[in-house]
Amino acid sequence: MVDILHRIGVTSSPGDVYTALTTVDGLAGWWTEETDGDGNAGGVLRFRFEPGGFDMKVLDAQPAELVLWEVVDGPDEWMGTRVRFELKQEDGFTIVLFRHEGWKEPVEFMYHCSTKWATFLMSLKKLVETGTGEPAPHDVKISNWH
Amino acid sequence: MVDILHRIGVTSSPGDVYTALTTVDGLAGWWTEETDGDGNAGGVLRFRFEPGGFDMKVLDAQPAELVLWEVVDGPDEWMGTRVRFELKQEDGFTIVLFRHEGWKEPVEFMYHCSTKWATFLMSLKKLVETGTGEPAPHDVKISNWH
Repeated sequence: MVDILHRIGVTSSPGDVYTALTTVDGLAGWWTEETDGDGNAGGVLRFRFEPGGFDMKVLDAQPAELVLWEVVDGPDEWMGTRVRFELKQEDGFTIVLFRHEGWKEPVEFMYHCSTKWATFLMSLKKLVETGTGEPAPHDVKISNWH
Repeated sequence: MVDILHRIGVTSSPGDVYTALTTVDGLAGWWTEETDGDGNAGGVLRFRFEPGGFDMKVLDAQPAELVLWEVVDGPDEWMGTRVRFELKQEDGFTIVLFRHEGWKEPVEFMYHCSTKWATFLMSLKKLVETGTGEPAPHDVKISNWH
């Protein structure tokens, strides 16, 4: 089992970051404009992109502290993996510790997703700090796999 | 042992990407302006940043295909780890498969380095495609850890 790890710091409150991770408007502002569903614990969120999408069951959502999703629909490599956002305060930043955990193998698609997650987390930072993120289809393109 | 993985595609030739990975001018154009040493196999490269730096022994360098470094000086968590760039052509892109391998533990510094590597690889892409990258100290700041 292998994981994708990332860490960013956002110059806004943990509550603001939590809102961007648990509301449809927030998620549509940094990951993909085609987002719907319910971001509370027990809910299911549907994220769609041009080539497909992901459904996430919200396993846990603790205000200003933790958001944990399980992938319940999407590409084979993502099925059953979990996406974890841990929030904490440090030096006037809200630190987001991100982990996409439980990949079975380090396939080339995982390399791609790791870099895409970094650009989407920078989009989250930008959304919360400035009000405007870079969600799909306006996301930063990194390669032939977009 | 855990690894950081990334994948980008550069709309330039593998030879141009290889030059950016093996010459002091190239490396100084996307990773850190304070770079010196020898990027050929058997050489040692010295990369310096405001808080410190890394010395890399070049274990392997195969034109337009592979660059492999071993960290021989730097922070404890990096000592003995390896940084691998594999190049291949696909759909008119030069694909860079990046792997920073051999971390002992997924410490918080590893989360940080994973996201920083993504921004530096986007800087490499920008350098090779446009002639201008974003090397330190002009690098994209991602958190309180810079």
